Amino acid sequence: MSHNTFGHLFRVTTWGESHGPALGCVVDGCPPGLKLTEADLQVWLDRRRPGGGKFVTQRQEPDQVRILSGVFEDERTDGRVTTGTPISLMIENVDQRSKDYSEIARAFRPGHADYAYFAKYGVRDYRGGGRSSARETAARVAAGGVARKVLGEGVKIRAALVQIGPHAIDRDRWDWDETLRNPFWCPDAVMAQQWESHLETVRKAGSSTGAVVEVEATGLPAGWGAPLYGKLDAEMASALMSINAAKGVEIGEGFAAAALSGEDNADEMRAGNDGPIFLSNHAGGVLGGISTGQPLVARVAFKPTSSILTPRRTLTESGAEVELRTKGRHDPCVGIRAAPVVEAMTACVLADAFLRHRAQIGG
Amino acid sequence: MSHNTFGHLFRVTTWGESHGPALGCVVDGCPPGLKLTEADLQVWLDRRRPGGGKFVTQRQEPDQVRILSGVFEDERTDGRVTTGTPISLMIENVDQRSKDYSEIARAFRPGHADYAYFAKYGVRDYRGGGRSSARETAARVAAGGVARKVLGEGVKIRAALVQIGPHAIDRDRWDWDETLRNPFWCPDAVMAQQWESHLETVRKAGSSTGAVVEVEATGLPAGWGAPLYGKLDAEMASALMSINAAKGVEIGEGFAAAALSGEDNADEMRAGNDGPIFLSNHAGGVLGGISTGQPLVARVAFKPTSSILTPRRTLTESGAEVELRTKGRHDPCVGIRAAPVVEAMTACVLADAFLRHRAQIGG
Amino acid sequence: MSHNTFGHLFRVTTWGESHGPALGCVVDGCPPGLKLTEADLQVWLDRRRPGGGKFVTQRQEPDQVRILSGVFEDERTDGRVTTGTPISLMIENVDQRSKDYSEIARAFRPGHADYAYFAKYGVRDYRGGGRSSARETAARVAAGGVARKVLGEGVKIRAALVQIGPHAIDRDRWDWDETLRNPFWCPDAVMAQQWESHLETVRKAGSSTGAVVEVEATGLPAGWGAPLYGKLDAEMASALMSINAAKGVEIGEGFAAAALSGEDNADEMRAGNDGPIFLSNHAGGVLGGISTGQPLVARVAFKPTSSILTPRRTLTESGAEVELRTKGRHDPCVGIRAAPVVEAMTACVLADAFLRHRAQIGG
Amino acid sequence: MSHNTFGHLFRVTTWGESHGPALGCVVDGCPPGLKLTEADLQVWLDRRRPGGGKFVTQRQEPDQVRILSGVFEDERTDGRVTTGTPISLMIENVDQRSKDYSEIARAFRPGHADYAYFAKYGVRDYRGGGRSSARETAARVAAGGVARKVLGEGVKIRAALVQIGPHAIDRDRWDWDETLRNPFWCPDAVMAQQWESHLETVRKAGSSTGAVVEVEATGLPAGWGAPLYGKLDAEMASALMSINAAKGVEIGEGFAAAALSGEDNADEMRAGNDGPIFLSNHAGGVLGGISTGQPLVARVAFKPTSSILTPRRTLTESGAEVELRTKGRHDPCVGIRAAPVVEAMTACVLADAFLRHRAQIGG
Repeated sequence: MSHNTFGHLFRVTTWGESHGPALGCVVDGCPPGLKLTEADLQVWLDRRRPGGGKFVTQRQEPDQVRILSGVFEDERTDGRVTTGTPISLMIENVDQRSKDYSEIARAFRPGHADYAYFAKYGVRDYRGGGRSSARETAARVAAGGVARKVLGEGVKIRAALVQIGPHAIDRDRWDWDETLRNPFWCPDAVMAQQWESHLETVRKAGSSTGAVVEVEATGLPAGWGAPLYGKLDAEMASALMSINAAKGVEIGEGFAAAALSGEDNADEMRAGNDGPIFLSNHAGGVLGGISTGQPLVARVAFKPTSSILTPRRTLTESGAEVELRTKGRHDPCVGIRAAPVVEAMTACVLADAFLRHRAQIGG
Repeated sequence: MSHNTFGHLFRVTTWGESHGPALGCVVDGCPPGLKLTEADLQVWLDRRRPGGGKFVTQRQEPDQVRILSGVFEDERTDGRVTTGTPISLMIENVDQRSKDYSEIARAFRPGHADYAYFAKYGVRDYRGGGRSSARETAARVAAGGVARKVLGEGVKIRAALVQIGPHAIDRDRWDWDETLRNPFWCPDAVMAQQWESHLETVRKAGSSTGAVVEVEATGLPAGWGAPLYGKLDAEMASALMSINAAKGVEIGEGFAAAALSGEDNADEMRAGNDGPIFLSNHAGGVLGGISTGQPLVARVAFKPTSSILTPRRTLTESGAEVELRTKGRHDPCVGIRAAPVVEAMTACVLADAFLRHRAQIGG
Repeated sequence: MSHNTFGHLFRVTTWGESHGPALGCVVDGCPPGLKLTEADLQVWLDRRRPGGGKFVTQRQEPDQVRILSGVFEDERTDGRVTTGTPISLMIENVDQRSKDYSEIARAFRPGHADYAYFAKYGVRDYRGGGRSSARETAARVAAGGVARKVLGEGVKIRAALVQIGPHAIDRDRWDWDETLRNPFWCPDAVMAQQWESHLETVRKAGSSTGAVVEVEATGLPAGWGAPLYGKLDAEMASALMSINAAKGVEIGEGFAAAALSGEDNADEMRAGNDGPIFLSNHAGGVLGGISTGQPLVARVAFKPTSSILTPRRTLTESGAEVELRTKGRHDPCVGIRAAPVVEAMTACVLADAFLRHRAQIGG
Repeated sequence: MSHNTFGHLFRVTTWGESHGPALGCVVDGCPPGLKLTEADLQVWLDRRRPGGGKFVTQRQEPDQVRILSGVFEDERTDGRVTTGTPISLMIENVDQRSKDYSEIARAFRPGHADYAYFAKYGVRDYRGGGRSSARETAARVAAGGVARKVLGEGVKIRAALVQIGPHAIDRDRWDWDETLRNPFWCPDAVMAQQWESHLETVRKAGSSTGAVVEVEATGLPAGWGAPLYGKLDAEMASALMSINAAKGVEIGEGFAAAALSGEDNADEMRAGNDGPIFLSNHAGGVLGGISTGQPLVARVAFKPTSSILTPRRTLTESGAEVELRTKGRHDPCVGIRAAPVVEAMTACVLADAFLRHRAQIGG
């Protein structure tokens, strides 16, 4: 992984700041001949788009994606197809509300990337967080749309929130369809209601709360991922940890595996009609860094955003001690918007793993 | 990250299997002029070496590391120094006990990489796990020794076990010195005793148990790590997840951050004599993917090893259903041996971050 | 080097086709705090722009470059400066003349990339050469403008044509100023006139001719470039050979070195006030892949373009034998336009070498 | 390309110095299931081995290669096969003649990498040239042997010397079999005799001379190589220019293309039974950076070695002006030994191109 590029063969390079004219990405290494239109990508961007509810930022962005290169249509291709050359995707920034940044221009929000960027670069675009803004994740979601095309219909990737603040779902009530019915990607209808009242409290207090997102990918074959440093779970860990506000990643049992015995953690195998059947999936679909054919399961923990109304002690760029409260648009729980981003990053990791596998093994 | 290489500028390529003649690594990109002898590396290998207690594998390996290239001595250098060319490190395998692998040669250990390797490559070196063996981590530890030289005395990296099985330490009893007094890298003297009896039970049952390792790096300046896909925490996540048996990685508060409010999670800042002082370290030393100057804190969860005496249902390579129990040398808790590996990977990530930072920013 | 990215630390990813809506690049890894405006880049694009004479393609493109990210201005920066984040540059395609591509849509121009693209990808954007068009080099030139900022005023890079068709310059008449006075980047005033009449003949015949471009970089210190596979000359070779129509690259004496004796080829050294003085520069400024502090000198050979009026035997996509002549806009000598591209690629290679050197060695 | 690694998917990392205990390489990304023994590699090393004649260095090295990892044999594999894990190859240095390096330890040989290494690293292993020694190419040749296995029997790679000093072969007398009959890899029996007397004169004078090597690869399909920065010819240029003493690389017509007209340079196509037939091969098998299915043809120019008996003016490390003549073993023409290295690098580039192509396109 390079600074602003991820992936090895399916490579995504993103660019853009919160308040610049646009943001976007270049997707390189995509196989040729795949049907790809802007509408194919827009569907994923629309799922990510803020403004759908009162619990995500009120910034209004249409997030219309444009494909600037890498697809072509003539009478023989029956629609626009990828050509194998780089796919440039661009999303214009529209709602760059002219607001007063004079305060955070000089003071660092505690818990925010403000200070770290300044310490590293000596200069920072503080408007809306600049490069560290979650706006950048729109480019990831667009790239994820291309990755899904590479993976094809057989691989299904979907994410759900399993915890907001201290409130975790009841896995016995898990229903994937439910994630489409509430604004929290919550698979537990009962918990969705509890989250709503929790978030209402948080929002009114000008506070924020963390969350945990779980992603599942089904339909991938055994064999993807390559030991030792390109392990599928290591690639997932890197990709998911690179999402704004992520603080932890786990695969399968994850941290719970530490408390298990070898007997309980082993996924026993029986012979099935189409290859091995695993009797459990503690591994989360990865052994030795290679996919087993079972569903890939990962979770990501997101911290609460640092933009809150309660004054916090901090410093200015010149080192003066001040108290700072972040006014303006707030996101009480950034983890909510992260769900489609987690899906997109998973799609990109898997598309990359597929191409790498095909390179070494063929088929 | 490539398959068997990690790092961008401080690059480590490892090779070798459990039962081949040797294993090793090539460290490329090391700055010139650093004092480096085999003894400098041996000290870390000796800490990792199994055989020190009855709770780690009984394989007896001297793990003598040889430096085959990249250092030079003449009358002007006052001892052996790095030359800026690749440093090749080799460790011979000595105790490749001639044992009967006929059973696991054909059957997959449930929960082990056996099946995944076979599904991917169609061929596997099953002796001792082949490439998936924890023997490979000796090469990581050797490379970590070089990384520590790059970082210098100012950066201090140390790891401790904070949980074995269901038994977590009491952080109020944390004493780093204690980690050197017990065979478990346990910073809590009381818990060390409890772990001993727990592991004795596990060992006698031919079972195994998981663990959580925590690593802390102090002395690194603010500014290391580069957004967005080379974030310091993303690099840590990838590096730590690539260690054998790792199933989860978290930074700072990690998964606990999901339950926090923005007020509680914010690390407030005050002016100190030598730059900012943070009043807490929920972030674990990283904001926006860049180091803040606070201690870098990460944790890794390790699953229990799949090599256990209790028979488990599994398949042979030809698809027949069998029951398998793993005879021979056992590691009741692979997490114990992982502590120096976690340190080494952290050192490598930081050395790489240092060089990358210096490239872009200078100084 | 990845497919559409070059450089290791100063990384340029280009995208776009001849007849798409736009083309551009993302420059990643640029140090922060460098003054950078669109005008700084436009000056180089204007030098490359076709339409300046009758001996380059008549396509009229303003080639206005836009900076979409990576620079920021506020009251403290005294103008727009780089922030260390990715710099996205975009150039819109304006003069995509609606022409009839029906013929080359089906037949492969002999000597052109048409067939190879089709054989590889199974689909190709044949309009104006698609991705293989020299339009793409506008993105390289823009990136080169950023690279020059990284290198600073001390490093001077300039290119000249030293041969067109069979007509080579007389090096005794070399005058760099002359390259700015004629449309051929010719340092030899006498030869410039001869080239003019030669090219007039070529143009009238609907033919084309090859050329050799020489580039010189002065002001770089000794020490840049890193053996063995990142040698400065190997990086130059790769970068220059990636330019459209390039067929050969040489450093210093180049192919002529094969005929020299060791005595004649050795660049003897004497002590100067500011370090060593070399008494000759057969090496072209590179020894062992590392810069010596002497001027870096390289040459690139460009073949004649395959778009000519004389009918040539070829095949259609379906394999039928046809004769093809390329109508429309022609470039009698693509090497002429290549000069600023050669400069730009050299700038990018050196900026990358500078950052890589600083990473490993510091300073 | 990283400093000491080349290739993207078929990756070779080399290490070692002229007078260290050993040298070697790690080959990563090799497909599994390929038969591979040490004898398969030794055959190529034996071809490269100095000592075969009086016109190459008299250093006596058995150059026995050992495979330390990445291959496995059991009853099912019918011989040793690659496992898909890293292949570590090691060659011990045996004839490190204890000679007096006191002179070149302090003075830089003009035209040699001595000064550049010292300027960059501040320290250098001057014994036999250290890392810059041609001994390192043994590792390339070993890796090339693995690459040939990846390519299979269908791809044939062979090199010949076409020029030594000012004496170029007559291409009308080209006979590949002849290259195996004389010690100069000369395909022209008449010229081989002329070279012998020329080299005898050079050797007696303690002088040296340059050379040009041509390599041809047949049997590769159309479609390998990927625009724009991973063009097959750009990869070849980089790989060949990285060989010791290389100063120029050209593809097909190369520099001669500059003098051609578009009509003469175009390779016309006719329909054949097995796809297109080209009526000429000015392109050298590459168009737009992609193989055409024609033979890949490249040439590399090698300078004369700087180790000569005639005193040359130079500096010591401390800046004193001295005269230096290089005593001891000499190589009157390093280009002779380069032929198998050129073959090996070509094999590695093609193996990499094959895997990259398979990744993106499949099949």
